[in-house]
Amino acid sequence: MKKKIRLIVQKYGGTSVADAQRMKNVARCIIRTPAEHLVVVVSAPGDTTDDLIARAHEVTGSPDERELDVLLATGEQQSVALMAMTIRSMGRQAISLAGQQIGIITDDIHTKARIVKIDTGNIRKALKSGQIVVVAGFQGVAQDEEITTLGRGGSDLTAVALAAELKADVCELYKDVDGIFTANPRIVSDARKLERISYDEMLEMSSAGSEVVNSRSVEYAKKYRVPIHVRSSFHEGAGTMIVEEAKEMEKLLVSGVTYNKNEAKITILEVPDRPGIAAKLFRSVADANISVDMIVQDVSEKGVTNISFTVNKSDLKKALAAVNKAVPEIKAGGRVTSDENIAKVSVVGVGMRSHSGVAAEMFEALAAKGINIEMISTSEIKISCIIRAEQTEEAVKTLHSKFKLGKVPVTDENR
Amino acid sequence: MKKKIRLIVQKYGGTSVADAQRMKNVARCIIRTPAEHLVVVVSAPGDTTDDLIARAHEVTGSPDERELDVLLATGEQQSVALMAMTIRSMGRQAISLAGQQIGIITDDIHTKARIVKIDTGNIRKALKSGQIVVVAGFQGVAQDEEITTLGRGGSDLTAVALAAELKADVCELYKDVDGIFTANPRIVSDARKLERISYDEMLEMSSAGSEVVNSRSVEYAKKYRVPIHVRSSFHEGAGTMIVEEAKEMEKLLVSGVTYNKNEAKITILEVPDRPGIAAKLFRSVADANISVDMIVQDVSEKGVTNISFTVNKSDLKKALAAVNKAVPEIKAGGRVTSDENIAKVSVVGVGMRSHSGVAAEMFEALAAKGINIEMISTSEIKISCIIRAEQTEEAVKTLHSKFKLGKVPVTDENR
Repeated sequence: MKKKIRLIVQKYGGTSVADAQRMKNVARCIIRTPAEHLVVVVSAPGDTTDDLIARAHEVTGSPDERELDVLLATGEQQSVALMAMTIRSMGRQAISLAGQQIGIITDDIHTKARIVKIDTGNIRKALKSGQIVVVAGFQGVAQDEEITTLGRGGSDLTAVALAAELKADVCELYKDVDGIFTANPRIVSDARKLERISYDEMLEMSSAGSEVVNSRSVEYAKKYRVPIHVRSSFHEGAGTMIVEEAKEMEKLLVSGVTYNKNEAKITILEVPDRPGIAAKLFRSVADANISVDMIVQDVSEKGVTNISFTVNKSDLKKALAAVNKAVPEIKAGGRVTSDENIAKVSVVGVGMRSHSGVAAEMFEALAAKGINIEMISTSEIKISCIIRAEQTEEAVKTLHSKFKLGKVPVTDENR
Repeated sequence: MKKKIRLIVQKYGGTSVADAQRMKNVARCIIRTPAEHLVVVVSAPGDTTDDLIARAHEVTGSPDERELDVLLATGEQQSVALMAMTIRSMGRQAISLAGQQIGIITDDIHTKARIVKIDTGNIRKALKSGQIVVVAGFQGVAQDEEITTLGRGGSDLTAVALAAELKADVCELYKDVDGIFTANPRIVSDARKLERISYDEMLEMSSAGSEVVNSRSVEYAKKYRVPIHVRSSFHEGAGTMIVEEAKEMEKLLVSGVTYNKNEAKITILEVPDRPGIAAKLFRSVADANISVDMIVQDVSEKGVTNISFTVNKSDLKKALAAVNKAVPEIKAGGRVTSDENIAKVSVVGVGMRSHSGVAAEMFEALAAKGINIEMISTSEIKISCIIRAEQTEEAVKTLHSKFKLGKVPVTDENR
């Protein structure tokens, strides 16, 4: 007989629990899980969170964030109650936990709280008494018992954090995709599902545009070495394991090609090339609470240079205001321009660490298709290029094929 | 200058907070309240509670009651968050409290919990810091932190209980009627709004069919001497005060006429007239968890009698089963019949205590209109008659006019 797994933490997203029929399907999937103990994290049903936000905006232009958290937390509370009663109606013991009962203690930054500590007393007690424990994702409580929410991707984070604290054998994230792919299958027809990927690669892929798993959750999983299984909520087949870097992984040069069309580029012309100038510029942007992604500074000519950087499109207006505020201070002589018609294309892979040729191959492949590279940024295991937005698909297909990411994995041996 | 009231507890029902526009209206009404401190109890918006119950029944035929409470509590939590942000958007400080934060500790009987104790620490702290405190009605927590709900009329009860504990000057219950009337204004055109009514009269009127305030809330208010102001959520005019019996009240013979069409009558024929027989019969009904309202036993003839009693129509089937189970045991010789086509008409008034003629006048008035009385039941301050359902309106109009409940109050002097 197959040995039973001790403890699994599962997470189901909002679309999986959008109506009664889907909820019953998920409940059946939960009951089939061959684990001794089971903790199930559930998101708010379907569009509930968006609906609640819309209702808040109907009563006021700028909803108080404390009250927004009180409001939004009700979505997951509904899901867990409905899910627990669904499981019970199928003959298994189940109990829902929401808010304070979960034991996730956060700081008091409403709408984007960070986890401070986790008290799994209630969960362990319920598991011990044979219950399937259904936990409201996305929410916590601050030390003063105030309701908080964890921000974007919060339910994934709840699952990973509980898996870490409970030392679960695996944290299963059920998604509407089959796993992590070498490229977006909607663009690249022979994109291949990865069997496994390292935390670091997944982090780079997330920041490079893959939206399957939020990078906060991957970071948390990496820190506490929680194995994540990203799998489909539509069928039982295996998905992709996100795990620590294994020996055989090193042979993989490139694991995937990603793209991100949500960024915009800002360029400041004729900036004096003196120490402290860039610092002043980006301090101004940081003070406006804007995250900058890529930064490129041209070669200096006659004591002046051009600085370009990218931000999320939604932050472009705020970023331009911050830059224009800083321009007189840094005595930039030229114009400030912005460009929303760009895309970032990236190749990610731990194998790059020991192989120097990847960047050159990437640039050559793009050049051969007449795709101009406007900015370049690299990390140990990632190379990103800014190109024209309309060339995104062609670039992704070209790179996917160049690095032979199709059906057969590329290793050091078969290059 | 008018002296400010120290503390008011207000309660707004679901229809008052059904959408953003109504919520804003209520917020304006709250802000206008001339009280130093204000606690506002809010119900779930519009049909939310019914919708949630329907969703529970979509996933399972018999929802677990613990989980049903977790689910239903989200309705009021949404209301308080939205109401607090609405008030804040109008420039006043407000904070919502839900679940555990409220401090209402109940027993662990899910879906109809009873209040065990109230810890108003959080509310007092918020009031002290100048906040309008917006409290989720209908919900509490058991001593083990489990979420509970208080059952039908629960939000009124929350308001009354908090008013008692906080020693509020008044508990204002905002309703979609103007107050308590001498009879249903939809039936009796000259029905008059009562300026005040005693707890006992209100209790009799509630049990006799008036649905404006739940009798549990009135009982609680009576016990802790909380003055209740039943008033309209549509305009600022005064409604009806529910208070302790005052001297001048005694002069009022009859305060109101009510009716109830929700009862059914069960008759058991040829019951042996021996001690212990009725006890056995009604033990059987009580064991089936059915509340019996009126009971009438005919005059005994030849050692046998007929027993009739009324129950809620929704309990009729269960009650008949219980009776039929008891029939062999009590050796009743005749048939068991039931009748759903009845109505109960009642007159209520503390003045009856010192005036014996009211019952006779009531029976005469009904007889004069050819209305047959099938059962009679009396309390110190109420007389109820069972009649044919189709004669309800005529009976109510007749009694309202007989006791001169129209525009001029009837007192001992002007009879």
